[in-house]
Amino acid sequence: MNLPALKDIQAAHSRIRPFIHFTPVLTSQQLNRMFDCELFFKCENLQRVGAFKFRGATNAVLQLSETEKQRGVVTHSSGNHAAALSLAASMNGVKAHIVMPETAPEVKKKAVASYGAEITFCKPTLQAREETTRIIMEKTGATLIHPYDNFNVICGQGTAALELLSDKPDLDFVIAPVGGGGLMSGTSTCVRDIDSKIQVIGAEPLNANDAWQSFNSGKLVPSVNPLTVADGLLTSLSELTFRIIQNNVDQILTASEESIISCMLLVWERMKIIIEPSSATVLAVIKENPGIFRGKKAGLIISGGNVDFRKLPF
Amino acid sequence: MNLPALKDIQAAHSRIRPFIHFTPVLTSQQLNRMFDCELFFKCENLQRVGAFKFRGATNAVLQLSETEKQRGVVTHSSGNHAAALSLAASMNGVKAHIVMPETAPEVKKKAVASYGAEITFCKPTLQAREETTRIIMEKTGATLIHPYDNFNVICGQGTAALELLSDKPDLDFVIAPVGGGGLMSGTSTCVRDIDSKIQVIGAEPLNANDAWQSFNSGKLVPSVNPLTVADGLLTSLSELTFRIIQNNVDQILTASEESIISCMLLVWERMKIIIEPSSATVLAVIKENPGIFRGKKAGLIISGGNVDFRKLPF
Repeated sequence: MNLPALKDIQAAHSRIRPFIHFTPVLTSQQLNRMFDCELFFKCENLQRVGAFKFRGATNAVLQLSETEKQRGVVTHSSGNHAAALSLAASMNGVKAHIVMPETAPEVKKKAVASYGAEITFCKPTLQAREETTRIIMEKTGATLIHPYDNFNVICGQGTAALELLSDKPDLDFVIAPVGGGGLMSGTSTCVRDIDSKIQVIGAEPLNANDAWQSFNSGKLVPSVNPLTVADGLLTSLSELTFRIIQNNVDQILTASEESIISCMLLVWERMKIIIEPSSATVLAVIKENPGIFRGKKAGLIISGGNVDFRKLPF
Repeated sequence: MNLPALKDIQAAHSRIRPFIHFTPVLTSQQLNRMFDCELFFKCENLQRVGAFKFRGATNAVLQLSETEKQRGVVTHSSGNHAAALSLAASMNGVKAHIVMPETAPEVKKKAVASYGAEITFCKPTLQAREETTRIIMEKTGATLIHPYDNFNVICGQGTAALELLSDKPDLDFVIAPVGGGGLMSGTSTCVRDIDSKIQVIGAEPLNANDAWQSFNSGKLVPSVNPLTVADGLLTSLSELTFRIIQNNVDQILTASEESIISCMLLVWERMKIIIEPSSATVLAVIKENPGIFRGKKAGLIISGGNVDFRKLPF
């Protein structure tokens, strides 16, 4: 298994730099006082398509051969990765095929379509999604760009932490959410290789704690019907992301739905930025574990800001 | 009538600089494409207390004599100026008295109280507010800091435009919302004195178009029971702000409620920042007057981001 290293993330950053936003690191004295620690928010909600996913998708698209570019890319996703791959492909003259469940929200279908991708709808089961994707690959020769089980995607996601540490090197902790583990894999590889004194923490909803279970049991536990407001963190780790997380992450902390929602509202109210529930998980684990973070400096990777304003959880 | 000049705004900026945030200027390629012009958002929603009002309040508090500081300050407001004055006073060891209508929303009462101000409630009429304020002034000797009919407040508000032009000097337009006219007075004085080629535009809700009426008739028309979602723009101009606006503003444009709400949603969705309806007015006038702005560069002063998330207009 080929595991990414810091140099791969640095190379990814040079490659994607002309296409991405170098997102700001924001702070809030009110939140610092409230949580009794110094917080540095790496705002990937302000990234293109409103999520860190654009980093990994761009890195993957830029490493296709000319022949592969002509054949296009494909993925199955209804979330931020679909929008990210669509835009990354379109910016590079590559055709994107997106397989989405027919039940996906209208707003997400529109977002993907607005980036010029071709959407194929399927029944809302993993089997239907994989089967539909396979058919498109056979028909078009398109390359599958998996949302997280992909070396190049992971290296792209790690560039957010690279920028965070270039802006703010003297951190005690870096915290990122864990869903499929792509962001956590890139983040933990980057931080571990730059400064092994910085602790790397994964943040997960208690109601979708498969990474916590996997990490603590040493065996990959899949996510089964998780029920959480953090809709970006429903997926299971892959063998690749699990291995990287085992190697590099210090601990995984979980947070209740109540904490996630209240921390999301807190960031909206006090910082005036829109973060999605998955992003709020990184602050929620601090709220639930004050003893670990008191008096420390923590970098928080805010993964995205895509929210349906007509279905707010508060 | 003593009218402010650029040097007064520059002096205000030096004075308040240690207390305020030098807020970022954000851009969005999606919005630029959508409106066919280049937009530069001066994000005062990211200012302390979530609004530009903190600039003017701080400038006013810092210019009190020692005796005045000991006696405290007072204002009647239920909005952003109340919170701004409370924080500015508390940061400088000055007691703040805030007169609020007893009907003010719970969230605003809490915000003001959290900054340590003493709140006096009164009946929700202008007469009751003024009478209560007068009684407090007589009893305590506190200095009235009016939300906009105040030279020092106006100079403080003008520092947002000063920062905008230092970051982005080559603009064709600067647009700011008009309520009582404090922000517009400071902004237009600053822009006119720095570069008279830049056009200064006031943005106002069509449903509260008293400044538009005053500007175009040459006579101060008061705002009578305006009904608009832009709750920061309900007040009337004063003689002072009207005079400054007459001298320095190129035109006042109005926008419908529908445009204000749709532009607010657009900024939330695309830029992932929270702006209040009053702020959205500056984008709404561009939406309604595309011919004026096509191919041009416009600086937009985003006045604030204080919103009740349980009462969204969309």
